[in-house]
Amino acid sequence: MPPGNSAEAPPTPALVFEMLQAHQRTAALKAAIDLDVFTAVGDGPGDVASIARHCKASERGIRILCDFLTIHGVLHKRKDGYYQHTPTSAAFLDPRSPSSLASIAQFLGNPAMHEPYIHLADIVRAGRTTLPGDGSVEPENPIWVQFAETMAPMMAPMVGPLGKVVLNGHNGPMRVLDIAAGHGLFGIEIAKQNPEAHVTGLDWAPVLRVALDNARRAGVQDRYDMLPGSAFEVDFGGPYDAILLTNFLHHFDESTCVTLLKKVHGALRPGGKAATLEFVPNEDRVSPPMPASFAMTMLTSTAAGDAYPLSALAAMYNYAGFSEVAAHPIPMSPHTVVMGQA
Amino acid sequence: MPPGNSAEAPPTPALVFEMLQAHQRTAALKAAIDLDVFTAVGDGPGDVASIARHCKASERGIRILCDFLTIHGVLHKRKDGYYQHTPTSAAFLDPRSPSSLASIAQFLGNPAMHEPYIHLADIVRAGRTTLPGDGSVEPENPIWVQFAETMAPMMAPMVGPLGKVVLNGHNGPMRVLDIAAGHGLFGIEIAKQNPEAHVTGLDWAPVLRVALDNARRAGVQDRYDMLPGSAFEVDFGGPYDAILLTNFLHHFDESTCVTLLKKVHGALRPGGKAATLEFVPNEDRVSPPMPASFAMTMLTSTAAGDAYPLSALAAMYNYAGFSEVAAHPIPMSPHTVVMGQA
Repeated sequence: MPPGNSAEAPPTPALVFEMLQAHQRTAALKAAIDLDVFTAVGDGPGDVASIARHCKASERGIRILCDFLTIHGVLHKRKDGYYQHTPTSAAFLDPRSPSSLASIAQFLGNPAMHEPYIHLADIVRAGRTTLPGDGSVEPENPIWVQFAETMAPMMAPMVGPLGKVVLNGHNGPMRVLDIAAGHGLFGIEIAKQNPEAHVTGLDWAPVLRVALDNARRAGVQDRYDMLPGSAFEVDFGGPYDAILLTNFLHHFDESTCVTLLKKVHGALRPGGKAATLEFVPNEDRVSPPMPASFAMTMLTSTAAGDAYPLSALAAMYNYAGFSEVAAHPIPMSPHTVVMGQA
Repeated sequence: MPPGNSAEAPPTPALVFEMLQAHQRTAALKAAIDLDVFTAVGDGPGDVASIARHCKASERGIRILCDFLTIHGVLHKRKDGYYQHTPTSAAFLDPRSPSSLASIAQFLGNPAMHEPYIHLADIVRAGRTTLPGDGSVEPENPIWVQFAETMAPMMAPMVGPLGKVVLNGHNGPMRVLDIAAGHGLFGIEIAKQNPEAHVTGLDWAPVLRVALDNARRAGVQDRYDMLPGSAFEVDFGGPYDAILLTNFLHHFDESTCVTLLKKVHGALRPGGKAATLEFVPNEDRVSPPMPASFAMTMLTSTAAGDAYPLSALAAMYNYAGFSEVAAHPIPMSPHTVVMGQA
C-alpha cells in the first residue's frame, strides 16, 4: 500500500466495477453520434419522442441511451424529463458546432482500432500488436485515409500554435517538408501564416489526396507540393528550412526514430528546424493521464511504438545530430511540440 | 445550455476523447486479471522484469499495461519505477484478498455480454437486444451458470444486510423461496442467520448445482431444497413466509413483473414478505451513476428490461396485491432491497 493512504476512506469496489463497465461509455457515445442524437437534441424540443423520430429509433432505446449520456456528462436532463446539451456536448458533439469532434469517433471507433483490445492479454504477452505485419504503420494501411478525413477537428486547435512555434516570426521565403502529412493541416497552416512559405506534403498517395483538397480549400494549393511514399524510403530532396513530423515518431522504436531523424537532419539547411508534435508524458510515464495513456494505443496497434517522455525524445534528437532541443506544450491540449535545430 | 453552467470554465474536448477511449480501461483490467498481474504485484518486488516473468509476458507489454493501470487508479508506481497495490487493488483485485472481485471480470467481460455493444446503434433503433430470442433471459442460457460461479464476490457484501432486513429478528421455523437463486447465497444466508429456516432455491438445474455446492460449503444443505425450472412456469408450492427475488425483475417489462409478483403473492402466507434486490435509480433515472447506468445493460441484453425507480417497483407490488412496500438501501453498495407484504 503506498504511503499516505492510511488516512483515506476505506476503498469501495465502485472503481473496479466502473472500469469493467467503461466500455459501455465508448459504445454509447459512438451509437449516439451514429444515430445523430446530438443534432436532435440541439434542434428539437428534447423530449424522447422527438429525438426518437429524428433518429428513426425506438423510444425505449433513446430514453435509456440519453439517460446514460446524461449520467456521463454529455447531455443534461431537465426536471421535466427533456434533454438538453451540456456545454461539452454543445461545443464538441453537436455537428453544427464549428468545434465538433463527432467525426473523430469514426477513426477512434473504427473496428480495426478496437479489435486488438479483445486480445489484449495476448498482446501484452507478445509485447506487440496482433494486427498483421507492422500493424497500423503497415504500408498503405487504409486507416490513414480515414485518419486524414476524420481526425482534422481534433488537430485543429493544435494547428495555429504549432505554426507559430515553427515560424517564430519568420516571414521570408522558406521551404517546409510535412512528413506523414495526413490531412495536411499543419503544413497548410505554415503556408497560411507565411505567404512566402512553400510546403511539400509527404504521405501515402491516397492520403495526400485529402491533404491536397484541404490545401485547395485554404487557397494555398499553388504553394503545396506532394511527395507520395514512405518516409523511410522516399528521397526527401531539400534542403528545407523546417521539417514537420506530427503524430509520427510514436509509432516506432527509438532506433527507428533516430534513423529517421538522421535522414531529416540531412535534408535540413544548417540551422533548420525539425518539429515533432507528440503526446509527451512526464518522465514517470503515468502523468498527465491523456499523453501517458497513449502508450496503450501504441502497444495495441504497433510493433514497438510508445509515448516518449521528453528525455527520450531529446536523446533521439541529439543522437541524430540536432541541438537546442526544446519542448513547447500546446495550451489546453494534451500535445507538445518538440523542436530541434540542425 | 443548462442553467448554472455559465460561470464554469470553458469546456474542453477531454471528456469526449476520454469517453471514446474508455473501452481501453475495461480491456486493460480484464487483461491484467487474466495475466495474473495483481498476484505478481502483491507477491513480488514489483519491478517490470519480475511481473513479466510471473505473467509469462513481455516487458514492453507489462510496462505499458502497469503504467495504464496506474493512470487509472488500480496500481501505484513508486518513484523508482516499481509497482505496488493501491488500497483498491489490494482489497478487490489481488486474488489472495478475501474481498477479491477478480472473478466478476469473467462474467462482465464475457464476449456474449460485450458483443451487443458493437451493434448498440441497431439496438437503440430496435429498442431491444440483438441477442437471439429473449437475450440473457432465454431459457437455459449458459451465462447464468457463469454468473452463479463468478458473481458471488460482488454480491457477498449484500448478503448479510439482505438477510437481516428479511428476517427482522424472526427466529422460529420458516419457509423461504429463493427465485433465480443463482449462486444461492441470499437464501443460504437466511438459513445461516435463522437455524430453523428452510430454503428452496429455484433456478435452471445447471445453475442450482452451483447453489447446492455453496449450501454444502455453508453447512445448511439439510435445510436446502431445489426447485429446477422457470420462475414463470414451475409450481412454487408454499405457502412461504418469505420469497426472495434478487437481481431478477430488471430483466422484464412492468406487466411481466406484475404477473410474476401476483404468482409470488399467491405463494406467500398472509403477512408473508417478498423481497427484491435491485439497482434502484432515483426517480430522475440519471442518479446515482451505478444504479442508473444499469438500464444500459438491460437495453443491450434483454427485450424489455430496465432499472426501475422505486415508484415503478412500488406500483408493480401494489398492482400484485402487496402492501407496505418499502425500500431498504444497502449501505456502501449500489443495491436496494424493496420489500412488500402479502
